[in-house]
Amino acid sequence: MTTHPAQDDSTGAGLSHFNDAGGAHMVDVGGKPETRRIAVASGLVRMRPETAAVIREGRAGKGDVLGVAQIAGIMATKRTAEIIPLCHPLPITHVDVSLEVGQDLVAIRAEVATFGKTGVEMEALTAVSAAALTVYDMTKAIDRGMTIESIRLESKSGGRSGAWERTDG
Amino acid sequence: MTTHPAQDDSTGAGLSHFNDAGGAHMVDVGGKPETRRIAVASGLVRMRPETAAVIREGRAGKGDVLGVAQIAGIMATKRTAEIIPLCHPLPITHVDVSLEVGQDLVAIRAEVATFGKTGVEMEALTAVSAAALTVYDMTKAIDRGMTIESIRLESKSGGRSGAWERTDG
Amino acid sequence: MTTHPAQDDSTGAGLSHFNDAGGAHMVDVGGKPETRRIAVASGLVRMRPETAAVIREGRAGKGDVLGVAQIAGIMATKRTAEIIPLCHPLPITHVDVSLEVGQDLVAIRAEVATFGKTGVEMEALTAVSAAALTVYDMTKAIDRGMTIESIRLESKSGGRSGAWERTDG
Amino acid sequence: MTTHPAQDDSTGAGLSHFNDAGGAHMVDVGGKPETRRIAVASGLVRMRPETAAVIREGRAGKGDVLGVAQIAGIMATKRTAEIIPLCHPLPITHVDVSLEVGQDLVAIRAEVATFGKTGVEMEALTAVSAAALTVYDMTKAIDRGMTIESIRLESKSGGRSGAWERTDG
Amino acid sequence: MTTHPAQDDSTGAGLSHFNDAGGAHMVDVGGKPETRRIAVASGLVRMRPETAAVIREGRAGKGDVLGVAQIAGIMATKRTAEIIPLCHPLPITHVDVSLEVGQDLVAIRAEVATFGKTGVEMEALTAVSAAALTVYDMTKAIDRGMTIESIRLESKSGGRSGAWERTDG
Amino acid sequence: MTTHPAQDDSTGAGLSHFNDAGGAHMVDVGGKPETRRIAVASGLVRMRPETAAVIREGRAGKGDVLGVAQIAGIMATKRTAEIIPLCHPLPITHVDVSLEVGQDLVAIRAEVATFGKTGVEMEALTAVSAAALTVYDMTKAIDRGMTIESIRLESKSGGRSGAWERTDG
Repeated sequence: MTTHPAQDDSTGAGLSHFNDAGGAHMVDVGGKPETRRIAVASGLVRMRPETAAVIREGRAGKGDVLGVAQIAGIMATKRTAEIIPLCHPLPITHVDVSLEVGQDLVAIRAEVATFGKTGVEMEALTAVSAAALTVYDMTKAIDRGMTIESIRLESKSGGRSGAWERTDG
Repeated sequence: MTTHPAQDDSTGAGLSHFNDAGGAHMVDVGGKPETRRIAVASGLVRMRPETAAVIREGRAGKGDVLGVAQIAGIMATKRTAEIIPLCHPLPITHVDVSLEVGQDLVAIRAEVATFGKTGVEMEALTAVSAAALTVYDMTKAIDRGMTIESIRLESKSGGRSGAWERTDG
Repeated sequence: MTTHPAQDDSTGAGLSHFNDAGGAHMVDVGGKPETRRIAVASGLVRMRPETAAVIREGRAGKGDVLGVAQIAGIMATKRTAEIIPLCHPLPITHVDVSLEVGQDLVAIRAEVATFGKTGVEMEALTAVSAAALTVYDMTKAIDRGMTIESIRLESKSGGRSGAWERTDG
Repeated sequence: MTTHPAQDDSTGAGLSHFNDAGGAHMVDVGGKPETRRIAVASGLVRMRPETAAVIREGRAGKGDVLGVAQIAGIMATKRTAEIIPLCHPLPITHVDVSLEVGQDLVAIRAEVATFGKTGVEMEALTAVSAAALTVYDMTKAIDRGMTIESIRLESKSGGRSGAWERTDG
Repeated sequence: MTTHPAQDDSTGAGLSHFNDAGGAHMVDVGGKPETRRIAVASGLVRMRPETAAVIREGRAGKGDVLGVAQIAGIMATKRTAEIIPLCHPLPITHVDVSLEVGQDLVAIRAEVATFGKTGVEMEALTAVSAAALTVYDMTKAIDRGMTIESIRLESKSGGRSGAWERTDG
Repeated sequence: MTTHPAQDDSTGAGLSHFNDAGGAHMVDVGGKPETRRIAVASGLVRMRPETAAVIREGRAGKGDVLGVAQIAGIMATKRTAEIIPLCHPLPITHVDVSLEVGQDLVAIRAEVATFGKTGVEMEALTAVSAAALTVYDMTKAIDRGMTIESIRLESKSGGRSGAWERTDG
């Protein structure tokens, strides 16, 4: 019987997603304790002011782009481990995706929580990405040039490596 | 029996993803001809130079981040219609995802083709997003501050609305 | 090389989903022409008048149960062939799901179209079912006794067996 | 770092699937204890007596409609969180789906159990729905007018809100 | 706009699943004609005679291992492109999976057809694999030592490369 | 309220995947303790020496068949419960898939771990199967006659039934 000691996925010395032979593997988190873990990610869709105006009006009743994108973000969170090859499947306990229209952009923020052996950073980033793609899909007929920008982790807490918070604004 | 005339998804006058009652629907493309359609999208993951260096070395043999991200991008392309709520399922005929490491970034480009009734812009953008998320996942242990930037359509061809190419660089 | 003549899935003499040995199979539709096919299905969620009132208010702005159920119905349509074992995968070209709150119920109607070799009855029925389950999920905290009723095909058109319309009201 | 107190999903005062801003979210169950939870749901497919007779004969050996529907129900249970947008993914520990042919109907019953932080009502209702849709699919060639009726929760146990049992017959 | 000439996936000179840079891609089949394509694959699960006897009795009424494995095979066929990274999604038009119990084995055969731009060899092999894994799953409590053997293509027809039939027995 | 005592899935007296009525069900594992469980499976793809040579060269830089198959195996592990009808969904904590090219074959080995109520034998066997199918897919253009052989459990540990190791070589 082969034995397989629990591995550390946060040593910083190298990429933990590869085994000694240089092959990809799903890191062993079996020896890590289950703790409450939260991650917050954000991103935005940059667009023409006219496009932002159409979305703002829709919110008021004629076609709710942000409502659909919110659902897309929540549902994608649950499929993160299907999309990201080496991501662990996790029992998500909470997802909140919010979207706000600005002058020439839609700002997206996702908060995801679990009680598990590894963090939910990828789940939060995937939620933001899916919501952003959905905003693009629903408005591309009037603005093909939109860009998705600044998808990034804002903070995380829980787990051995502890809390992390973005400090560069 | 209700009848439902083919609708135009590119009128520009409004958002075609909503019906007259303001509800979301999947646009009727039944009346559109099947033509060869190609879309190209791009994006990048901004990172510390040290992180880019680790990825570059991995390429050389100790853990191929870009190879895994490439597969993630290709596989996500096929699931676009599951992730984006109002996206039509399409018989993808070609996907090519390429990744290149720069000084402080990984640049991603995806080209997707189909022979169908609607375009593959969302498929190309989804491929880039999934590849970018995978790069983040595989290197986050050494650089949590990375950001995903500039996910955007570069060009599309085929279909009634014809070719479109980004002109703002 | 075995040969396999196109089979008729509408003979009425028996169940076409079984082969001669009595085993389940996915009926051969390879010999059928591609035609435009439309199916309409309906159903309802029966509930207490107080529950219907809460949903009606939500529509007005504080939590849109019907908007979420609509998206659930559209997305489930695309996964019909994953849920129903012997159902053919089809390139859906249009989905429209509408929900209306009545005195003590939510009425659901789905219209689905394709241009393909077999019909979309199951897609329309699946859309209605998923929307109904979502209405239940979102309001079950205040009314566990709700029931889903009368999920049924209203009409279909296209294909060799031609149009069919419900006549019993 | 944002904080997010555990929320109650059974207050009855409103719909827990919406946050304070009226947006949809997946309720936070992180603070709830893991307990054994069971839910039982039922439903039926109403059909012509001739159709029920064909199914009954199939059971005896020439094409087992109920056997296929049983598998469809079990498999759909595992995908509930993919179909219902705000449903939590849960580690299902038991599923039992039974189907019985009557004079002019097929009666379906599903029992689902988990050991988790939230209940399995939606899983049991989804199992019944998928089994009912499969019965329809497999017999629609001989009886398009069938209807799916009375999909409902019969009982649930476990969790803070305790046991619930249908009392209206 | 980049251009991308249709590529040949059967040159034999090299592996078509890689582009000129050595990266994996989904081969471009956009320029290939749609033709009727059929593939037949087979395989077997080797087991103790006692295990085969239990399966044979089940068939007779107390628990139908082969019936469940048949459904598993059919359903997996539809998900081939999700499981095999570079496989094209195809509109499957027919699937037939048969299983037979022998003295100390279960023999599996799958026939899959499509009308499309590329073949269904992978779909037939995936159907056999999923059916074999299901037989293992359902009997492993009494025979952990079973092995899955000889999963292979038996024949294919359709497409430019024409018919192929196994000749080595 | 029905009650449902925890059942034993390893009695050996019969097939636990069927209930008393002979119907398929997902065995109740609710009463089993969560323990660390590991399973190792193996298998091989038999091919012409020329094909093995092409794969070996690709490893060296022109197209990495084994790298793609490794990712396919890891990703399929996470979808085991979707492919095998009566398999329990499990929180996989580790997956390692390795592939080695021999004279006329590719040898595959998968190790999977969880901390859960039931074992991961099916996950390890599914990982091997998906990797083998991917090797076939990527080289079939030059060698259609390849066969997948000897997919089998090598060892398992954890759980009430304890450790098991293959002894017949």
